[in-house]
Amino acid sequence: MTFDTVLVANRGEIALRVVRTCREMGIRTVAVYSTADQDSAAVRAADEAVHIGPGPAKQSYLYPPAIIEAALLAGAQAVHPGYGFLSEDPDFAEICAKNDLVFIGPRPEVMAKLGDKALARSLMADAGLPVLPGTREPVGTAQEVSATVERIGLPVIIKASAGGGGRGMAVVRTMEELLPAYRSVRAAARAVFGDDRVYLERYVERARHIEVQVLADEHGNVLHLGERDCSVQRRHQKLVEESPAPRLDPATSRELYAAAVRGAEAVGFTGAGTFEFLVDGRDIAFLEVNSRIQVEHPVTELVTGIDLIREQIRIAAGEPLSLRQEDVRFSGAAVECRVNAEDPSRDFAPCPGRLAEFVPPGGPFVRVDTHAFPGWEISPYYDSLLAKVVVWAPDREQALARMDRALREFRIGGPNVHTTKELLREVVADPVFAAGRHTTALLDGRPAT
Amino acid sequence: MTFDTVLVANRGEIALRVVRTCREMGIRTVAVYSTADQDSAAVRAADEAVHIGPGPAKQSYLYPPAIIEAALLAGAQAVHPGYGFLSEDPDFAEICAKNDLVFIGPRPEVMAKLGDKALARSLMADAGLPVLPGTREPVGTAQEVSATVERIGLPVIIKASAGGGGRGMAVVRTMEELLPAYRSVRAAARAVFGDDRVYLERYVERARHIEVQVLADEHGNVLHLGERDCSVQRRHQKLVEESPAPRLDPATSRELYAAAVRGAEAVGFTGAGTFEFLVDGRDIAFLEVNSRIQVEHPVTELVTGIDLIREQIRIAAGEPLSLRQEDVRFSGAAVECRVNAEDPSRDFAPCPGRLAEFVPPGGPFVRVDTHAFPGWEISPYYDSLLAKVVVWAPDREQALARMDRALREFRIGGPNVHTTKELLREVVADPVFAAGRHTTALLDGRPAT
Repeated sequence: MTFDTVLVANRGEIALRVVRTCREMGIRTVAVYSTADQDSAAVRAADEAVHIGPGPAKQSYLYPPAIIEAALLAGAQAVHPGYGFLSEDPDFAEICAKNDLVFIGPRPEVMAKLGDKALARSLMADAGLPVLPGTREPVGTAQEVSATVERIGLPVIIKASAGGGGRGMAVVRTMEELLPAYRSVRAAARAVFGDDRVYLERYVERARHIEVQVLADEHGNVLHLGERDCSVQRRHQKLVEESPAPRLDPATSRELYAAAVRGAEAVGFTGAGTFEFLVDGRDIAFLEVNSRIQVEHPVTELVTGIDLIREQIRIAAGEPLSLRQEDVRFSGAAVECRVNAEDPSRDFAPCPGRLAEFVPPGGPFVRVDTHAFPGWEISPYYDSLLAKVVVWAPDREQALARMDRALREFRIGGPNVHTTKELLREVVADPVFAAGRHTTALLDGRPAT
Repeated sequence: MTFDTVLVANRGEIALRVVRTCREMGIRTVAVYSTADQDSAAVRAADEAVHIGPGPAKQSYLYPPAIIEAALLAGAQAVHPGYGFLSEDPDFAEICAKNDLVFIGPRPEVMAKLGDKALARSLMADAGLPVLPGTREPVGTAQEVSATVERIGLPVIIKASAGGGGRGMAVVRTMEELLPAYRSVRAAARAVFGDDRVYLERYVERARHIEVQVLADEHGNVLHLGERDCSVQRRHQKLVEESPAPRLDPATSRELYAAAVRGAEAVGFTGAGTFEFLVDGRDIAFLEVNSRIQVEHPVTELVTGIDLIREQIRIAAGEPLSLRQEDVRFSGAAVECRVNAEDPSRDFAPCPGRLAEFVPPGGPFVRVDTHAFPGWEISPYYDSLLAKVVVWAPDREQALARMDRALREFRIGGPNVHTTKELLREVVADPVFAAGRHTTALLDGRPAT
C-alpha cells in the first residue's frame, strides 16, 4: 500500500503539483511554508500546512530540522522534495530515513554519486555511455588544467563537481582566459556549494540539449519515457522544452534511450530521473543526471499520459512500475514555456510585485501549472517562475500555433509586474526554432526586448 | 484554402472556444456582443468585436440582420454559430448563404429536416435505425393521442417536433394525465417554438443517454469519434458527460457507431453532429440529431486528440476530413462537469452576480473552458453555464479522482454567487455513478443540497 500522509518539502507550483496528485491518490498532504508563502496556493490546497520559518530559504525550505519536525508532528510517512531546495541532497534523504520517513527519490548513496558531477561522468563512462573528452577525476592544480586543455583542445567548459542544472560553470575559448576562469569557478563553487572541486570537458559550441526521462522501481524495472529537447536556454537556464525533440533521427533517439536505461541500471537508480545529453547531429555525449522530478516534466506527461508524480510516489512506496516499456505509448507533440516574473528591460532581473490581474489561458490541450492567482505577491526570496504553460497537439506545428495562442491569451498584470511572455512568443515564432534547427546558442547575443 | 476571417455568432465559453481554434489556424476572428457582454472574454480575445444590440438575446444573438451586417462590414467569409441561439436555425443558414457567407454547419435543408424531431425520427427509422414505438407523423388530435397510447402503452413521452435538447416535452404515466399533458406541451411548443406539432414515443424509465459524435465532409466521408455518456441530468439538462460510456458492451457501442454513420449518410449530413440514443442494456433507440457542436464536445477531444472546431471549419471550407476512421485512436477516459451559476438553496435558480474570486483548477490533464474571470459580472440574460471542467486520465477511476480534485480546487466566490460545484462533487462521489450503473434517473428525487 501507499502512504496515508505525504509532506511536501517545497513551495510554488511544484508543491501544488505534488498536492494535486496526492489528492487524486487519496493521500493526505501536509504543506510547509515560510512566512512569505503563508497565503500560497499550496498552503490553500493542502490538507494541513505547517509554518517552518522566515522567507529566506536557508531558514525554511533548506532547513531540514524544521521540515522533519513538521513531518513527524503531522504524522507523515513520506516526504516529497519537489525540485531544487533539498531535492538532491543525500544528507536530507539520510535524515528522513533516520526519522522513519520515506524520502521520495533515489537512495541517498545513489544521489550522492550522481550529485558529484565528475564522479557521475566517470561512472557513466564506465557503463559505456559516450562522454565528451575531459577529465575523469576533478582537477586539483593549474598544471593539470593546462595539461588537460593541451590534450583535448579549446574551447573547454569548467564545471563544479557539486554543481549541475546550469550553475557553477564557465566556458573558456582562449588560453588567456583558462586559469582565471579555473580560479573563478573554484571560488564560486566553494562559496555556493562548499566544495571547490572542478572538472573539465570539451565545450561544444552548437549542440542540442536533449534529456531522457527514466523511471525505475525497487524491483529492478527501468524504463524510459522518451526525450525532452531543452535547447532553448538563456544563461544555461531553460526557457522552452518539448517532446519529442524535433528532427531527431530515430537511431539517435534509440541510442539516447538505451544509454539512459543502461546508466540508470549501472548505478541502481530508483525513482524518477533525467539523463541529460548534448546532441550534435548523430553524436551524443552524456552530461549529468538529475535525480529528481524536473520543472519540464509536464511535456513528458502530455505525450505519454503518465502522471510522473504518481509514479514517484508508487515507487517510493515499494510498488512495481505501473507499466512496462512496451506499454508506453507516445502521442503527438508537447511544448512547455516557462513564464518568469522578470523584467526584459532590466536584463531579465526578477521583479517581485503583486499580481493585480492573472487570467491563465485555457481551452483545448492547454495546461497551466502555476501557484499564482490574482492578488498573489511574487516574493523576492525565491526563483522567478510564475507559470508553466504547456500545450499538446497532434504535431509540432499545431503545438507551436497553440502555444502562441495560449501565451497571447495569458493576462498578467500589476504594478512593477513584468514577465518573459513576449520573449517566449518571439522564440515560438522564431523561424530557426520553428524549423527545429536550433541549438543551445539560439538566444546568444539576442538583445533584450 | 480556409477562411481569412470568421465571425463568431455566439457568446460565452463557446465563443471564446471558437476564437481559440481560429487563432491557432491563423484565422482572424470577429466577435459580436450584446451590451451585457461588452467586457467579455470573447470580446477581449477576438481580433475585432462588433456591438450588435442590447442584452436580451432576441435583440442581439438571435437577431440575424445585426449579425449579418457585422460579418459583411468586418469582411468575414464565414460564420460560426456555436451552440444554442441560431446554431440550428436553417433560416439563418440560408440568410448567410444569400449574403455569400459560409455558415459553419450542415446545409440548411439538412438542418431543417433534423430540426423537425418527428421527421428526423421518421427518416432515421427509414434508414434502419432502431426507434422507440411511437408516432411516425406528428399527432393532430386528442383521438390520435389516445389511440397511440392504446397501441404502445404507458408511460409515454410527448415531445414537440420543433423542440430538442431537453426542451418541450412531458412524461405521461397515467391516462388521466394524457390529454392535459398533450394540450400543455402543444401550448408550450406554440409559445416557445411557434410550432405546436407534437409526437409521442414510449417512455423508458431507466435508460442511459448515449450520443455518438460524427464528422462528415462534403466529399462523402463520414466518420464517428466514439460516444459520450450524458446520463447524468437534472430536468433533462446534462450535468456530467463522459467518454467512453462506462460498462457499455463492445457490440452495443459498435451498433451505435454504425447507426450514427448510417444516419448521417442517409440525410447527407456534413459538419459536426451528434446522434443521441437511449440505451437500456443492449437495446438502443435513436432519439434525435444535434446538427451543431455540443457543449460536451471536449470529452471527445480529450480521448481522440482531435480539435472538433478545427474540423468544423475545415469541412465548411470544403476540405476533406483530416483523418480516416482507422486513424482515429481512442485513449483513456474523459469526464466533463458543467459548473453553473445556480443557487442550490433556491432549487438551482440562476444567480447573476459579480465574481470577486475566480481561480480555475489546473495541473495535469485538467482543462477548463470558461469565459469567466475575476471581476466578471454574470448576466441574467443568458444561460447559467460558468465553466466546463474537463479531465482526462488513463482510466475512468483515475479520471473521477482527478475530477474531484479539480472541483475541490476550483475557487469561485462573490456576493450572491452560488454554483453547482458541490452537487457535481456529490455526483462524482456517488457509488452508483462511480460504478457506472446509473441511468438518467440518477438525480430524480434528490433533494437540493
